[in-house]
Amino acid sequence: MTQFDKHPDLIVRQPDPFNGGPPPNLLLGNFITPYELFFVRSHGGVPNVDRSSYRLTVDGLVERPLSLSLDDLQRLPRAAVTATLQCAGNRRQEMMAHKPIPDELPWGTEAVSNAEWSGVPLREVLAAAGVRPGARHAAFTGLDDTERHGHRFNFGGSIPLDKALSGEVLLADSMNGQPLQPVHGAPLRVVVPGYVGARSVKWLSRITLQEKPSDNYFQARAYRLFPPHYDKDNVDWEKGLMLGEAPVNSVILSPQEKATVPAGKVTVRGWALAGGSRGVARVDISADGGENWTVADFIKDEGVFVWRLWEAVLDLASGPQEIVCRAWDTAAQTQPERAGQVWNFKGYANNAWHRVRVTCA
Amino acid sequence: MTQFDKHPDLIVRQPDPFNGGPPPNLLLGNFITPYELFFVRSHGGVPNVDRSSYRLTVDGLVERPLSLSLDDLQRLPRAAVTATLQCAGNRRQEMMAHKPIPDELPWGTEAVSNAEWSGVPLREVLAAAGVRPGARHAAFTGLDDTERHGHRFNFGGSIPLDKALSGEVLLADSMNGQPLQPVHGAPLRVVVPGYVGARSVKWLSRITLQEKPSDNYFQARAYRLFPPHYDKDNVDWEKGLMLGEAPVNSVILSPQEKATVPAGKVTVRGWALAGGSRGVARVDISADGGENWTVADFIKDEGVFVWRLWEAVLDLASGPQEIVCRAWDTAAQTQPERAGQVWNFKGYANNAWHRVRVTCA
Repeated sequence: MTQFDKHPDLIVRQPDPFNGGPPPNLLLGNFITPYELFFVRSHGGVPNVDRSSYRLTVDGLVERPLSLSLDDLQRLPRAAVTATLQCAGNRRQEMMAHKPIPDELPWGTEAVSNAEWSGVPLREVLAAAGVRPGARHAAFTGLDDTERHGHRFNFGGSIPLDKALSGEVLLADSMNGQPLQPVHGAPLRVVVPGYVGARSVKWLSRITLQEKPSDNYFQARAYRLFPPHYDKDNVDWEKGLMLGEAPVNSVILSPQEKATVPAGKVTVRGWALAGGSRGVARVDISADGGENWTVADFIKDEGVFVWRLWEAVLDLASGPQEIVCRAWDTAAQTQPERAGQVWNFKGYANNAWHRVRVTCA
Repeated sequence: MTQFDKHPDLIVRQPDPFNGGPPPNLLLGNFITPYELFFVRSHGGVPNVDRSSYRLTVDGLVERPLSLSLDDLQRLPRAAVTATLQCAGNRRQEMMAHKPIPDELPWGTEAVSNAEWSGVPLREVLAAAGVRPGARHAAFTGLDDTERHGHRFNFGGSIPLDKALSGEVLLADSMNGQPLQPVHGAPLRVVVPGYVGARSVKWLSRITLQEKPSDNYFQARAYRLFPPHYDKDNVDWEKGLMLGEAPVNSVILSPQEKATVPAGKVTVRGWALAGGSRGVARVDISADGGENWTVADFIKDEGVFVWRLWEAVLDLASGPQEIVCRAWDTAAQTQPERAGQVWNFKGYANNAWHRVRVTCA
């Protein structure tokens, strides 16, 4: 089992490779997720990387292929970014309640966390290598040893070149002011703000500029959004949207599902996150299934790429209650009502209204 | 009444100032909307502009305030862009069916059109003027004479400076290869691809770089998205989202509402549009209220800022049928189910599933 400095209360979805994240009560109140609580999504084991022989390869449609040691990377300009990462499978459990999703991790709401990252902007490395005409995508390959369907390979994925050159994407060696730990991708990981977590490749070993998206399994087959009538037996892999930017989402962290709370004024708290370069404009809370909404207050005012923490006070009568939340992004886009409406057989990108059932006593 | 070369079958929502657009059967099949069919949203009368004395003022937080004649503008670099414009109030009628919206135009689905625009990129004009530190928004003012609540003023609005400098925004003097007509903003209008139509200010007379968004009525009060519990009597104007980028949307153009069609194979056709810089990834059609979906085929493959035309074949039994469509953007974001879920007292940004009720005979 993967060894790392993790909090004993993490919700564990898979012990090896380790997949788990913080329960709502521990996410609550932390704008920056503490190191030991940050969720872990691993597709394979954590590789042992020898820092002295480590090299980052930059190749493909570049003027000057590079092989950079960690010392070489230290000589490049640095930057910092606060970015919330969320697994594309976060909130899959709610989709599973609508219709089973057999072969994927049953994430609740714990596959999301927020950190301060620092490192070398991807743009600096690409400028050093020189972008050749025809390049459209930056493909990343990790050092992990992953197995899918009988094949062993390294995790990988890609992002459009425009995003790679935007200055927003970081090759991070530091998280929350500390050196990056092995389980989070040491010595170097990609951080792609505004995108699903899978594109923030850990244990980065290679950046390849190319005309097409990565043909790695996790870009070409997994992490695609398929129409609802597909399943693993009838899927046409070409018919799925390759996930990149994420849709607007929000989650209630308190009260928690099945909690008993005193009737009367109940403070509801949670987070909201907009994908791409959009911001969160508003969060609404309802205790009557969306007939009436209360607008939440933002606790902290931040820009794009990070969640906005919010709270709202509802006046609840005694008895069973269902509290729901929905966010709006800065393009006036809100969330769909039910997880069944966005169900897909891989269980990605669930951004339905989040629901918490409580008893008011 | 406004005189212009308009199609006799335009749906007229207001004769003076003229507000109207093309019925579904005339939008159908045209990727580029013919000139005489392009929808018109006028807030005031069409101004008489003398081309020889016309000047475009560029002021505010600029290094060199400019006063440009049409001849001056002709000496700047030119560009062309195909962009679909949609009024923020398009599809308001469906919201009105949920709850009345008394003081706004009852747009059906006709406040949207697509054109080829050409002119001077806004970026070129701003480069000539020089952007001073502190500038965050580009405010536009028109030459029309508009009246709201007893005050007479010019229409105006603003966009973030980043968008203004993106190269995507055009100061257009040509539409579909012809000189811009007065009703569409001659001699010069703004075209802001990916934004609600209101920011594409017609009869442009002034561009002001400033720290804050425009304080024009149509930026500061109108074209804001308010929470559902506000109306004109209790509204807090500061609590509304200033509309800019638009949410993903789609509309069925054929068959039309209340049509009678032969039972059996029915071809459904329409358009889909994603806001900001996102693209349309998929369109789904259902004849059973969203239980089962058919994925539509795209007829024409275009990039961002333009609608994607689609078609799908459904097998319909005889009797009354409701056909619905929903689109997904490239960030895996789809539309909400019901107009009531996004209702707001100004009736903006309705992107609920579009519904057409037909009888199969």
